[in-house]
Amino acid sequence: MSVLIVGSVALDSVRTQHEAHENLLGGSASYASVAASFFGPARMVGIVGEDFPGAYLDLFAGRGIDCAGLQRARGKTFAWSGEYETNMNNRRTLSVALNVFETFRPDLPPAWRDTEFVLLANIAPVLQHHVLDQMRRPRFVVADTMDLWIQTTRDDLVGLLRRVDMLILNDSEARELTGIDSLPRAAAALRAMGPAWLAIKKGEHGCLLFGDDEFFTAGAFPLEEVKDPTGCGDCFAGGLIGHLAASRATDAAALRRAVVYGSVIASFNAESFSLRRLEGLTRADVDARFEAFRRFSRFE
Amino acid sequence: MSVLIVGSVALDSVRTQHEAHENLLGGSASYASVAASFFGPARMVGIVGEDFPGAYLDLFAGRGIDCAGLQRARGKTFAWSGEYETNMNNRRTLSVALNVFETFRPDLPPAWRDTEFVLLANIAPVLQHHVLDQMRRPRFVVADTMDLWIQTTRDDLVGLLRRVDMLILNDSEARELTGIDSLPRAAAALRAMGPAWLAIKKGEHGCLLFGDDEFFTAGAFPLEEVKDPTGCGDCFAGGLIGHLAASRATDAAALRRAVVYGSVIASFNAESFSLRRLEGLTRADVDARFEAFRRFSRFE
Repeated sequence: MSVLIVGSVALDSVRTQHEAHENLLGGSASYASVAASFFGPARMVGIVGEDFPGAYLDLFAGRGIDCAGLQRARGKTFAWSGEYETNMNNRRTLSVALNVFETFRPDLPPAWRDTEFVLLANIAPVLQHHVLDQMRRPRFVVADTMDLWIQTTRDDLVGLLRRVDMLILNDSEARELTGIDSLPRAAAALRAMGPAWLAIKKGEHGCLLFGDDEFFTAGAFPLEEVKDPTGCGDCFAGGLIGHLAASRATDAAALRRAVVYGSVIASFNAESFSLRRLEGLTRADVDARFEAFRRFSRFE
Repeated sequence: MSVLIVGSVALDSVRTQHEAHENLLGGSASYASVAASFFGPARMVGIVGEDFPGAYLDLFAGRGIDCAGLQRARGKTFAWSGEYETNMNNRRTLSVALNVFETFRPDLPPAWRDTEFVLLANIAPVLQHHVLDQMRRPRFVVADTMDLWIQTTRDDLVGLLRRVDMLILNDSEARELTGIDSLPRAAAALRAMGPAWLAIKKGEHGCLLFGDDEFFTAGAFPLEEVKDPTGCGDCFAGGLIGHLAASRATDAAALRRAVVYGSVIASFNAESFSLRRLEGLTRADVDARFEAFRRFSRFE
């Protein structure tokens, strides 16, 4: 079953303490769509400029990602550059050029309005609203967000929460949005604002899933080396919605599995820059790491 | 089967943003022994002064803790006072008075030298060595430690690692002792220094267990409110060794269970000051929370 994913498509320049790369394929929709594509077809909604490399379009096509919703506009593609400090948890944005993204309006191809599983990947809440305005009756809508939107367009974001089934954010964002330090209490407050489900990402500490009478904790894969964590949150969201859609289920057991599959894809993504690690990955690789997650969290 | 636990016994004064309490029962041996006592008898080695309240001795006796190794000396009991900031992760030590602890030499009652399960709770490594010097052939020795010993008596600590089966420390201490940022790599380096097993505590993020071809990750219990985290690390270690001794096993499955039981006791401990929460707790409460840990980490 198809998933619809809307978000940013970007050209990234990323510097770590060891390497620097320019004009990498990036953006929340790129990462999330490739992550979702391991489980079934994905429909991508976004915008690119005239400078967007054909090789990246080929990559999407090769992964079974339908780009009928990917607008090509005059001008340059959204560009982001950032730098990681030694421990990889601290990222500094060096520059952002919105370019064609400045006037982006995510209009859906009419045939896509019936898509049942929707990921509103990390973009401005007003654009996430605009996508939902066009959908008929989506079965399950997941919204990802970030601190920028909490700080700059909080009302739009809060309004969005009433329209989605699941919110994804990280632990510091959950605390910032609610003003509550205790994560279980912050989770309850966020769920009271709308979404039945909440996933709180904690980076190297794994993630938490909250629902009605439901709490699930997943560890993170023990990576010896993190080469580039850019896009890991997007991969988590994309893997999650992709697996949910493939399973055609939205119950607690399906969501637990989807959270682990999202964590699996995110863990692979951190092993190289941009989407390079995912490019060579097979579904068998993904399933093998899913089984590793099961082994390392089980006790009798 | 008995466990032998050596560590500090203290009178603590603890201040949080909401409450302040003085002359609380504290110290690594106190917390660890009470934690271990949920699973079987414990033998405590430590020292107290003339001011140590009889009510605290009664508490130990009531929990089946043998205090034949608890020395009573002239002078005052080791006293510590500290303060927690709002988020409970940052603790500031306000004062430390070693008092009788300054001349403490943990000599064992002769009959205790054959104890099979030993916890060297958090005290100076030279004292931990002294206990091991007196043991005959312990089956499983666990050592806990802290940043202070890494910084002030590193050589003693490193020497100790060759003599123990398991080391327990927190994530920042693992990084500090090895100079390695990646936890899986730091874990490998620590295990190469001696202990076959390593537990890395991560507070609200749970803990990790490393062994030969063995990796296990346990989440933390989702506490709505942390009243006082003092002694949680000691409770983790005490619950772990207590459950191991009761199970009479030291294989990977037993260690996984012991890690979860340690986490269970630590999570209860954070719910009140000093050992108050554990005082009213039953083995059935402990087992119920163990089952909750299983429920919230399972996926099909």
